[in-house]
Amino acid sequence: MSSKRAPIIGVIGPGQCSGKLKIQAEQIGQTIAAEGAMLVCGGLGGVMEAAARGAKEKDGTTIGIIPGDKKSDANKYIDIVIPSGIGEARNLLIIRTADAVVALPGMYGTLSEMAFCMKTNTPLVSLQAWDISDKIIRLDDPIKAAKEAIRLARERK
Amino acid sequence: MSSKRAPIIGVIGPGQCSGKLKIQAEQIGQTIAAEGAMLVCGGLGGVMEAAARGAKEKDGTTIGIIPGDKKSDANKYIDIVIPSGIGEARNLLIIRTADAVVALPGMYGTLSEMAFCMKTNTPLVSLQAWDISDKIIRLDDPIKAAKEAIRLARERK
Amino acid sequence: MSSKRAPIIGVIGPGQCSGKLKIQAEQIGQTIAAEGAMLVCGGLGGVMEAAARGAKEKDGTTIGIIPGDKKSDANKYIDIVIPSGIGEARNLLIIRTADAVVALPGMYGTLSEMAFCMKTNTPLVSLQAWDISDKIIRLDDPIKAAKEAIRLARERK
Amino acid sequence: MSSKRAPIIGVIGPGQCSGKLKIQAEQIGQTIAAEGAMLVCGGLGGVMEAAARGAKEKDGTTIGIIPGDKKSDANKYIDIVIPSGIGEARNLLIIRTADAVVALPGMYGTLSEMAFCMKTNTPLVSLQAWDISDKIIRLDDPIKAAKEAIRLARERK
Repeated sequence: MSSKRAPIIGVIGPGQCSGKLKIQAEQIGQTIAAEGAMLVCGGLGGVMEAAARGAKEKDGTTIGIIPGDKKSDANKYIDIVIPSGIGEARNLLIIRTADAVVALPGMYGTLSEMAFCMKTNTPLVSLQAWDISDKIIRLDDPIKAAKEAIRLARERK
Repeated sequence: MSSKRAPIIGVIGPGQCSGKLKIQAEQIGQTIAAEGAMLVCGGLGGVMEAAARGAKEKDGTTIGIIPGDKKSDANKYIDIVIPSGIGEARNLLIIRTADAVVALPGMYGTLSEMAFCMKTNTPLVSLQAWDISDKIIRLDDPIKAAKEAIRLARERK
Repeated sequence: MSSKRAPIIGVIGPGQCSGKLKIQAEQIGQTIAAEGAMLVCGGLGGVMEAAARGAKEKDGTTIGIIPGDKKSDANKYIDIVIPSGIGEARNLLIIRTADAVVALPGMYGTLSEMAFCMKTNTPLVSLQAWDISDKIIRLDDPIKAAKEAIRLARERK
Repeated sequence: MSSKRAPIIGVIGPGQCSGKLKIQAEQIGQTIAAEGAMLVCGGLGGVMEAAARGAKEKDGTTIGIIPGDKKSDANKYIDIVIPSGIGEARNLLIIRTADAVVALPGMYGTLSEMAFCMKTNTPLVSLQAWDISDKIIRLDDPIKAAKEAIRLARERK
């Protein structure tokens, strides 16, 4: 009767991005859902939206922790919207909620999230995002990256 | 393919409480799940644990936004643990995440959450909790209270 | 060489208010500064601005913890602007920063702050604000209220 | 009668550090105070304590935004303790409160703060800290670094 918590995988990256990055994010989202994990992200556009869309295509569960206080700010692929109302500080909640994280190349928001992964010993798989630690697992294939994150999340539990 | 968001009902009340309150909270949780809504709460003990247990008994989905940064702080009936790490400020996230709230009699934490419901126009059903506004719907039966909160949540969307 | 921390008095109340309340807030601010204490408030308009203006008239130090992330949101009587960027959650920081609090009659934001004072055992003096606890000290004169808050703040240290 | 806001300089770096770093941080704090600016930091040990001590040696004003909710966690050179109670999320408040920042070499907490400076266009002077942007001003001398940060803070206003 107690909860069997599915692993939660965070996907981080820019809120506006190229088509190539969107395709990668979508594949990551699909893989997360297909493997029985849940997705957490920042709930807005770009990589966040593409990853959530991918997860919904495979019937997954998507959590979006948004900076503002209006649920309508979230993209339409988010099942559970957490309107944090605490602005950028919500980035820390995304990382804490994730059992492992996949990073796509982003700017300073992504960098601060990656730094926070390192600080909190959250397993981090990177597809050509910032190079700030040897502990980051670098992969080029989005599907392999998502699978590796799920493996690390399960191992951690 | 986009998400059909189920209503999310917040349950607030003391982290330590009498057996009577636990039974009420459990019935509220059961009703929320049986009616196809999701539960959000503070993820710890007392009313929060009883409500989450009730929801899991009826196969519902439970979200716990906890004050600390360790998932292990959450009670075992929480499916999705959000380790906010922002302490009491997480109370505001519970209210913002909820589409409607049921309050059980608690102390000042509960009062501040009820005040925040009023401030954000979040529908609030109370079982003998603080009397701070005419906008609060007062009911004595936990099952009716949960159903009324769900009705208000659906109406709001 | 180490810091001699002056007591910090919080002043809470509505962001829009009548002339009568502004006069009271200004007198409270004046008294805080005249007695060698510092003022902390939410940094915006109404009671917050009047109290800060009062403090500056007596050459005091004013701290404003604002909800947004732009210093320009603060009123012009604030010396030290803390742009929290965490919205309403900043209310908790005001109470934690204060060694004692004076409340003027406000709505639900004020109520949640008063509730948080009670939760954290922060001494609270009220000028006809919400009646939620016997621990609140009720006074009608703003100058006496400010002096009592300063006394309680000094006693606490 | 309105406030003449002094520039506020943030000093960031590790909470535990070598004697060399402490000396640099102390010189930075001294310079900030000697030049009429205020210091904001994380309020704890290491670089934060040394910088605050330096500022107090020159009769400056020191603000410490600490992660926890107890004022006693702050080091003894902090005049104004903001007990945020929001954990690591308080790093963002330090950066938002600062008009310019000096970074000393730290780990991932420092990195996330530097990333947040870049995200918010906060002028950043670095003494051999993380190299994440061409916009960071690199200097080797702590006194020059502090003076440059103050110059940038004044220019920004």
